[in-house]
Amino acid sequence: MELTKPTILIDENKCRNNIRHMQEKAERNDVVLAPHFKTHQSKAIGQWFKDAGIKAITVSSIDMALYFAEDGWSDITIAFPLNILQVKEITELAAKTRLTILATELSTVHRLVEQIDVHVDVLIEIDCGYNRSGVWWEDFKKIQALIDGVNNTQHGFKGFYCHSGQTYHEDNAEAVLAIFNDSLHKLHDLQIRFADAKPEISVGDTPSCSLSDDFPGVYSIHPGNFVFYDLTQVKIGSCREQQIGIALACPVVSKNDHLNHLVVHGGGVHLSKDVLETSHGKIYGKMVTLTDHNWSFDLGDNYVVSISQEHGIIKVSPKVYEQISVGDVIGILPVHSCMAADVMGSMFTTTGEPLDHMKKDN
Amino acid sequence: MELTKPTILIDENKCRNNIRHMQEKAERNDVVLAPHFKTHQSKAIGQWFKDAGIKAITVSSIDMALYFAEDGWSDITIAFPLNILQVKEITELAAKTRLTILATELSTVHRLVEQIDVHVDVLIEIDCGYNRSGVWWEDFKKIQALIDGVNNTQHGFKGFYCHSGQTYHEDNAEAVLAIFNDSLHKLHDLQIRFADAKPEISVGDTPSCSLSDDFPGVYSIHPGNFVFYDLTQVKIGSCREQQIGIALACPVVSKNDHLNHLVVHGGGVHLSKDVLETSHGKIYGKMVTLTDHNWSFDLGDNYVVSISQEHGIIKVSPKVYEQISVGDVIGILPVHSCMAADVMGSMFTTTGEPLDHMKKDN
Repeated sequence: MELTKPTILIDENKCRNNIRHMQEKAERNDVVLAPHFKTHQSKAIGQWFKDAGIKAITVSSIDMALYFAEDGWSDITIAFPLNILQVKEITELAAKTRLTILATELSTVHRLVEQIDVHVDVLIEIDCGYNRSGVWWEDFKKIQALIDGVNNTQHGFKGFYCHSGQTYHEDNAEAVLAIFNDSLHKLHDLQIRFADAKPEISVGDTPSCSLSDDFPGVYSIHPGNFVFYDLTQVKIGSCREQQIGIALACPVVSKNDHLNHLVVHGGGVHLSKDVLETSHGKIYGKMVTLTDHNWSFDLGDNYVVSISQEHGIIKVSPKVYEQISVGDVIGILPVHSCMAADVMGSMFTTTGEPLDHMKKDN
Repeated sequence: MELTKPTILIDENKCRNNIRHMQEKAERNDVVLAPHFKTHQSKAIGQWFKDAGIKAITVSSIDMALYFAEDGWSDITIAFPLNILQVKEITELAAKTRLTILATELSTVHRLVEQIDVHVDVLIEIDCGYNRSGVWWEDFKKIQALIDGVNNTQHGFKGFYCHSGQTYHEDNAEAVLAIFNDSLHKLHDLQIRFADAKPEISVGDTPSCSLSDDFPGVYSIHPGNFVFYDLTQVKIGSCREQQIGIALACPVVSKNDHLNHLVVHGGGVHLSKDVLETSHGKIYGKMVTLTDHNWSFDLGDNYVVSISQEHGIIKVSPKVYEQISVGDVIGILPVHSCMAADVMGSMFTTTGEPLDHMKKDN
């Protein structure tokens, strides 16, 4: 494959290993792995999950659910507070697939009951401390009202969903597991409190699912990022650098002699503007050497230190500066792989096979 | 137009006013306005520039140049260090349009001369202090070598190009103009030093072009963001909030009682992860009320205080919290309009007309 411009490369072997590893952990723990597909948004990569025996998936929007329902996925959870304005699409989806939605609002549940005839399963999203969305875990009155609002209707109350995204602010396994266990503890409390409704528990961000070996009382887990991993996950401790399955190939277009900087074509529209605070300062990616169908770390630690819309600036040692020429194509491991795949909207395997992405097909 | 999911809305009147205002300033100063099209990446919006009399444009990639050359633009500058690996596309472009490229490297110029038969104009990119790309302005030896490398070939040396993006770190007109004038001073120095080559000067980021009334010795200016403007430009002082011509329509999907937060469908994949440091802390956008074919500021200052891939969290006053219901659609003014348009890859006017964007068409 001739690389002449910014191109997302996916190492299929690494990704399939990441999938297998997580699926084996789920099987050992007798939990359902319903991976979050917002990371890759790709039917082709979805096939790798099918190959590993995955049957249920998680997505972050109604449009994304439609994209994967078209591809035959028959058990889809939209892990985002239900947007009732898309009632037409929800009805279409519910007719096509076993659909689970997230409820956080009574008004939404009422409109769901009034407007959607086809059966939909409902998880109540619980906020165990992330403070993003979901019903606060101690708001028992609202939780009861939501359960009551769903039961005795055409729809079915399924259980509690929680994404403890605050794990992303940690940088060690102990801290991640403390958050995970705290969330589980709260959800178990709710499970006992609302035992009559027989709630399932669905949890699992990538850091927690990568670092925990134990999922007591959990029915399903929904990590997404782990298929690719990225520098953020390395910092958290969820994975090793060698497990990262995604890199952005970037042409070196200029060298900045007075600063030892490489200028590459690879900026915010290719990597997103996600930034990581590290001991090397703020970084937007890490340089790797592209090899035949893979990449290597032989040039040591060289980081993207700033990006604008199309430019990436890589600070390198004087030795590396001499080794890289204008016209070379280097790789960049992203800070946040989900966002890099999304902003690019197109991907290739390291062997040159194109991979679809919903962003371009939609 | 029925808004049911995150949708970029463009206020055509505001944008046409922004274009006219900048074009009138260029005419008063007898400089060519060659607007940067990376902001909108849209042929339809390009037409608004044609209507204002614009004939030359600036883009940030070879692919973007091809997109606009297809639409009949016949004078295009690619304001990015030439990526010589795309020699095929450059040749195609040079045959279609009057093409100007940016040179920063001797090796690239040599390959340009060897590999591209069709005439190409060359601007040398000069770094006057931004430290992103370009030849350091005092590296006279390299500048001379680049001029020599181009002259006496099939191509033509045209002059010096400078983007003083460090203006984006300022928050007042005085500081922006100090940077602009400092860059101009350095470029005038080069103009005298290399007078034999008759260099033109091309400058002009949006802050400088919005705030300066005077462009001495400048041949062309290439601001881009001004067509939409955004919150960053308001902070810098380049525009008033009322001039911003872009908003992201977002459904309110949840309300977080214990935090007075609104949860909207509108996150990093819709706004980008660009962030602005303000006296209100870090913000990712500002909420506005959508009105018939426009938006208003009647609810005061309410900011997007955090975003993840699909979620936006808006902190509002208790009074506003009561006024907004789940199922409402609110608007968000972006921190960085170029990136919001790019990550969305699709836009509509406030009257419901679809506007193309290269990201989806490509």
